[in-house]
Amino acid sequence: MQFAQRIDDQMDSNLEALLAAPAAGQVSFAGGLPDPQLFPERELSSAFSQALTTAGAQCLQYASAAGYEPLRQKIAHFLRRDGVPASTNTVMLTQGAQQALDLTARLFINPGDGLVVEGPTYAGALAAFDAYQPHYLSIPVRSDGMDMTILRQTLEQHPVKLLYTVPDFQNPTGTVMSLRKRKQLLALAREFDFIILEDAPYRSLRYRGIGLPTLRELDTDDRVIHVGSFSKILSPGLRLGWLTATPALLSRLITLKSGADLETSNLMMRAIDSYLNTNDLGQHIRQLRSTYAAKQEAMSTALQAGLPQGVGCSQPDGGFFLWVTLPEGCDSERILSRCRDHVTFVPSTTLYAARNDRRGIRLAFTNPSTDDIQRGCAELCNSIRQELVMVNSTKQLQQRN
Amino acid sequence: MQFAQRIDDQMDSNLEALLAAPAAGQVSFAGGLPDPQLFPERELSSAFSQALTTAGAQCLQYASAAGYEPLRQKIAHFLRRDGVPASTNTVMLTQGAQQALDLTARLFINPGDGLVVEGPTYAGALAAFDAYQPHYLSIPVRSDGMDMTILRQTLEQHPVKLLYTVPDFQNPTGTVMSLRKRKQLLALAREFDFIILEDAPYRSLRYRGIGLPTLRELDTDDRVIHVGSFSKILSPGLRLGWLTATPALLSRLITLKSGADLETSNLMMRAIDSYLNTNDLGQHIRQLRSTYAAKQEAMSTALQAGLPQGVGCSQPDGGFFLWVTLPEGCDSERILSRCRDHVTFVPSTTLYAARNDRRGIRLAFTNPSTDDIQRGCAELCNSIRQELVMVNSTKQLQQRN
Repeated sequence: MQFAQRIDDQMDSNLEALLAAPAAGQVSFAGGLPDPQLFPERELSSAFSQALTTAGAQCLQYASAAGYEPLRQKIAHFLRRDGVPASTNTVMLTQGAQQALDLTARLFINPGDGLVVEGPTYAGALAAFDAYQPHYLSIPVRSDGMDMTILRQTLEQHPVKLLYTVPDFQNPTGTVMSLRKRKQLLALAREFDFIILEDAPYRSLRYRGIGLPTLRELDTDDRVIHVGSFSKILSPGLRLGWLTATPALLSRLITLKSGADLETSNLMMRAIDSYLNTNDLGQHIRQLRSTYAAKQEAMSTALQAGLPQGVGCSQPDGGFFLWVTLPEGCDSERILSRCRDHVTFVPSTTLYAARNDRRGIRLAFTNPSTDDIQRGCAELCNSIRQELVMVNSTKQLQQRN
Repeated sequence: MQFAQRIDDQMDSNLEALLAAPAAGQVSFAGGLPDPQLFPERELSSAFSQALTTAGAQCLQYASAAGYEPLRQKIAHFLRRDGVPASTNTVMLTQGAQQALDLTARLFINPGDGLVVEGPTYAGALAAFDAYQPHYLSIPVRSDGMDMTILRQTLEQHPVKLLYTVPDFQNPTGTVMSLRKRKQLLALAREFDFIILEDAPYRSLRYRGIGLPTLRELDTDDRVIHVGSFSKILSPGLRLGWLTATPALLSRLITLKSGADLETSNLMMRAIDSYLNTNDLGQHIRQLRSTYAAKQEAMSTALQAGLPQGVGCSQPDGGFFLWVTLPEGCDSERILSRCRDHVTFVPSTTLYAARNDRRGIRLAFTNPSTDDIQRGCAELCNSIRQELVMVNSTKQLQQRN
C-alpha cells in the first residue's frame, strides 16, 4: 500500500490543534475563533425553522453545485456594495472559504507549478495547496503588504501560475496591503500572466481607518478570484463561503465542486438565506466591530506594556490577528512549550511555506475575554522575557569562548 | 492563463443536470433523488432548534475535522449492528459520501495510477477521481457483481492501487455482488496489493431477500475503506456522509479533509446527532423500504409489460436504480433526445470511465409517484420501440446493399 506522492510532500499544518478549544485555565490566542457570545443563536434557530417549515421538502433535497440562487444573489449584492463587481452568475457557494482555496488550486496547479504565497501566510491555505504539490515561492510581508521588489525578482526567475494573498488584515500579520502595492500587484499579474487568489474573510472587520478597494475591484483584466466567508462575520459552524470570478472560470470551478462534494448543504444555504431575509447583517457586523476593536485595543495595550525591548508587534486596524516578531536567536516554539499551560498561540513555524521561521508569534484576540487577554498577555510577555534572557546569556557565553 | 492538466483530462459527468428538478410535465427517472414526501421535516426542524437552544455557542463555533464525536459514536454503532467493525475512532464524517471518494483518491492516486471501476459505475465517482488523473480500468458488471475473471486478467496486466465498487444495489445497475465474488475480490486485493473503496449508500434499502456481509466485514487485511451516507436514508440536503477505515488511514484522511474544507458544519453534525437522539432511524428506514419497494415493483411491472423483446432489464432487490440494456446498434442518447420532453433518464455514456457505451439506460424509481412511473415507463418503452424499428430498418437496408 503506497500513498500518493502528495502525502509524502505534505507538511503538518496542525490545523486541528489550531481550532481546538482551550484547556481549563488556559488562555488561547491560537485559533482564529470568533467570540461565541456574538453568535446570533436565536436568529439562526428561527431561520432554520422558517426554512424547514415553508420549504422543507426543497431544503432537504439535492439542489445545485453553484449554490442556492437567492443566496448567491444576496452575496453578489453584498459584494457590489463593497465595490466588487459581482452578479448572481459570477458567485458560487463553497464549503467555507477553505474549499474555495482547494478548488482554485485544483483548477490551476500541476505538481511543480509556481505558486506565490505570503511569508508568513495562512496555514490552512498551505494545507489546501499542498494537495496539488505546487512549487512554493514565499514573499515577505511588510507593514504595507507583500514586498513588491522581492516579488518582481522572484517572478523574473520563476514561472508562476497563481498568487495567494490576504490583502485585508492579513492572516497572520494583520497588515493591510497599500493601494500602491495593490496596483503594482495587478500590473505584475498582467506582465507575468498569473492569477491572483484574493482571500478576504476579515475585510468587513475594520476597526479604524478607511478601507481600500479590493484587488477584484481594481482588476481590469479578470485575473482575480475573490473569496469570502460567513465564518468570521456570522459563524464558522455554518461552513459557508463564496467565490466570485468570471463566468468562464466559475463554470470550471463549479464542475470541480461537483466532483469534490456534489454541492453545499441545501438546507444550510436556504436557512442562511432566510436569516438574511429577516436580519440586518450590516448591523450584526457593526456589533462585531465594536467588540473586537475593544479586544484588539486591550491586547495591544497589554503587549505594549509587557513586551521587552527589541520585540516587534503589529498594530492591526482590523481582523483577528496580531503578530509579534522576536529578535534573532529566539524560538517561538520554545516560548510556547514554556507557557502552554497558561497561554497558547501559533508559532511561526507552520505559517511559512518552508516551515523554517521560528521568530514569529500569531495572536488571535477575538475569542478570549478582555480579562483573559490581559492575563494571557502577561504570561506570554513573561515567557518571552525568559527567552530573551536565555538567548542573551547563550550569546554572551559564546562570545566569551 | 493555463489550467492544470487534470482539467484537460476531465470528461463532463453532467452531474448538475442529473440532480436538477424535472421540468413541468416531465417525468424524471434521471437523478438518484429520494422521495421528498418521506423527508422528516418536522423532526429535523426540532433537531436544529434543540441543538441551537441547548448548545448554540458550541454549534456555531469551529469543531474538529474528524467530526462531532457523539455522532461518530452513533454511526459506529449503526455500522457495528450491520457487522462492520467500527468505533468512534475509526469513523470520520464527510461532506456527503462524495467527499469520502474525493479524499480517498487524494490519498492514493498519482497521475497514471491504476484505478479499477465498475463498468458502468457512478458518474459522481468518476468526477471525484478525475481530479487525480488515474488510469481507469473498467470491469464489466454481471448480475452478481464485477466479472472476476476479467478483473484477474486486468490485474495481471496492470498495476492497480485502488478499486472502487458499490457492492450493494450498485449504481447504476442495481445488482448485488455475490458472497463468492466478495471473497474473491478480497483475495485479489491481497494478492495484487490494492485498496478497496466500498461505497454503500443504498445498503440499508433492501426490499427483499437477505443482506450479505460488507466487504469491510469480510476484510481480514485492513484493505477496505467503507463509505456511507445519510443522503438516501435521511436527506441529501444535509450533505452528511461517513467513512470508516483503520486509524492509520483515517488520520491521513482527516488531515486531507482539513486541507479540503477544514471540517463539516458543526451545527449540521450536532443537529443530526440531536435528531438521532429523539427519533428511530431504523423505523424511518423501514418506512422508506416499504415505499420504495412499491415504486420499484411498479417500475418493473411497467417495463416488463412495455419493453420490446431483446431489451434487458435488471431486477434489483433494493436501492434506487434499475438498468435497461439495449440491443446492438441502439443509442440511449438518441432515445433520450426523442422522449426528453416527457421522460428523462441517464444514458450510459456518462457511466463508463471511457464514456464509450451507448447501450444502457439508468432509471431511478424513488422520486416520481407511482402514476408518474407508469406514465414515464410507457413513454420510455415507446421511444425504445421507435429506436428498435429504426435500428432494424437501417440493418435491413445495409444488408440489401
